[in-house]
Amino acid sequence: MDLKKLLPCGKVIVFRKGEIVKHQDDPIEDVLILLEGTLKTEHVSENGKTLEIDEIKPVQIIASGFIFSSEPRFPVNVVAGENSKILSIPKEVFLDLLMKDRELLLFFLKDVSEHFRVVSEKLFFLTTKTLREKLMNFLVRHMNEKRELTLPVTLEELSRLFGCARPALSRVFQELEREGYIEKHGRRIKVLKNPFEHDRI
Amino acid sequence: MDLKKLLPCGKVIVFRKGEIVKHQDDPIEDVLILLEGTLKTEHVSENGKTLEIDEIKPVQIIASGFIFSSEPRFPVNVVAGENSKILSIPKEVFLDLLMKDRELLLFFLKDVSEHFRVVSEKLFFLTTKTLREKLMNFLVRHMNEKRELTLPVTLEELSRLFGCARPALSRVFQELEREGYIEKHGRRIKVLKNPFEHDRI
Repeated sequence: MDLKKLLPCGKVIVFRKGEIVKHQDDPIEDVLILLEGTLKTEHVSENGKTLEIDEIKPVQIIASGFIFSSEPRFPVNVVAGENSKILSIPKEVFLDLLMKDRELLLFFLKDVSEHFRVVSEKLFFLTTKTLREKLMNFLVRHMNEKRELTLPVTLEELSRLFGCARPALSRVFQELEREGYIEKHGRRIKVLKNPFEHDRI
Repeated sequence: MDLKKLLPCGKVIVFRKGEIVKHQDDPIEDVLILLEGTLKTEHVSENGKTLEIDEIKPVQIIASGFIFSSEPRFPVNVVAGENSKILSIPKEVFLDLLMKDRELLLFFLKDVSEHFRVVSEKLFFLTTKTLREKLMNFLVRHMNEKRELTLPVTLEELSRLFGCARPALSRVFQELEREGYIEKHGRRIKVLKNPFEHDRI
């Protein structure tokens, strides 16, 4: 789907690297489509701490899943990671386009649904698996054919991903090592037994 | 929005209490709308354990957020909680309707987006707050004007909700009691200090 064909329906806005495109909680009044450049999203928590969330690459609709919610607001800060061009289309005009263009309608529904599926699966994973299962699952998914991996994130980030405290995660690492599932040297890990191949852990 | 006006566009299927409407992982071929009755959704995990997730009341589109994803499948078992009537509309026909009926299009987009917002917020909550913050937040949201509550779920369910192990949750309860934030007698809890009123915990 070439979203660039929508160019005549809106106006193009240019942002320089580092400029804030939208602040967290800004109302979503228009449909924004990143045409060129890179955007970064970051979440600001109640105590003012900023956490980098994601990168948006062109050509993509920004925050597609939130645009038509009942009180649509940007869930994060959107910042230009480099000089970027964004197409801004008023929501009403975009609705007209959806009703006229079946391909666009399907593209948009699929875009929103795919985001929904990813978020739902993550939520499910977090709420149904034990920390031990989450960690083992993560290691097995990231190991190479020699069953080795270098942790791609810090323990701090990993514990956030798993929704647990860092000491709890360290304890599980030690448990898995003691029970002969893994061998760990700093961030380098070798999986000795893969519990998902035969039995569950 | 009265979804019953879509009656002429599909066929009505009747399910008796206890009948399975869809199995988890069944492909989503039609748009299903619950007209009468109640549906229950349950998740079956890899080891065969079944977990009740939610209840669907009429009139509502079933699994709206998944219908137009790239490989659309039901994320859960859908079971009739009582005798129920479901309207089944082929996806292509539903797309035609969306393109003709602006009100329906807006309703559907809003429905999907609201689900997305709820799931995203839960995910955010789980991955950014510490267990201590999650628990305190939960207690404050559920207490009455006397700052008292009876836990509406078991510790087991609560730890699942928070994505942690049960012993970890018990430890945090003890911590909060020791530090004078709460008083706990079985499932009855009194909040003595609300850390969100002034400072963060």
